[in-house]
Amino acid sequence: MKNYDKTKVEEGARTELHDKLHLTGAEVSVNCLPAGACVPFVHSHKQNEEIYAVIGGAGKAVIDGEEIALAAGDWLRVSPAAKRQFFAADNAELKYICIQVKAGSLEGYTSADAVI
Amino acid sequence: MKNYDKTKVEEGARTELHDKLHLTGAEVSVNCLPAGACVPFVHSHKQNEEIYAVIGGAGKAVIDGEEIALAAGDWLRVSPAAKRQFFAADNAELKYICIQVKAGSLEGYTSADAVI
Repeated sequence: MKNYDKTKVEEGARTELHDKLHLTGAEVSVNCLPAGACVPFVHSHKQNEEIYAVIGGAGKAVIDGEEIALAAGDWLRVSPAAKRQFFAADNAELKYICIQVKAGSLEGYTSADAVI
Repeated sequence: MKNYDKTKVEEGARTELHDKLHLTGAEVSVNCLPAGACVPFVHSHKQNEEIYAVIGGAGKAVIDGEEIALAAGDWLRVSPAAKRQFFAADNAELKYICIQVKAGSLEGYTSADAVI
């Protein structure tokens, strides 16, 4: 495998990066829900932890029935089994990154995994 | 473990999310290099793939001696063994997210891992 891959994410509804970047430890998507829209289903995961970063706009998540307000700068970890759904605000789009990783897969990190 | 965690990332030099969000499959950091600054060392990793997202400003990465221009919207995957260093532009800060995951750890994802 090449030592790196690069791609440019244009503004749009949804860009999935696993295949574009040849990722092996995560799937990452960049998403934009228009004002008033929502992801049209509730879902959970078998193995994967999800990490969400709100990079613009506003909205909410509903996780196991609990409403969580979201605005730019907010980050969430969601356990695999939690039932989740995402909504843009009525008057603002919701721009977010979703990172899927296998729960429990990380061993060392930062100084414990780095070679300087 | 709680079914989710939430945190707000304020503007600043560097915020590490592993402990704040109780992540188990990734470390994520949100970073801002001031104009003219760089990460003051070259590093590689033992096990971890890194994924970088440029969320504002401009700069460059040097990966195994190759210069890669960076601007908002750019995403990179960097293999564990690649030697990397990041630089802000002389006249712009470089705001970026760094995601560390164990290379090869992802099994199913999206529709293969979801329960709807």
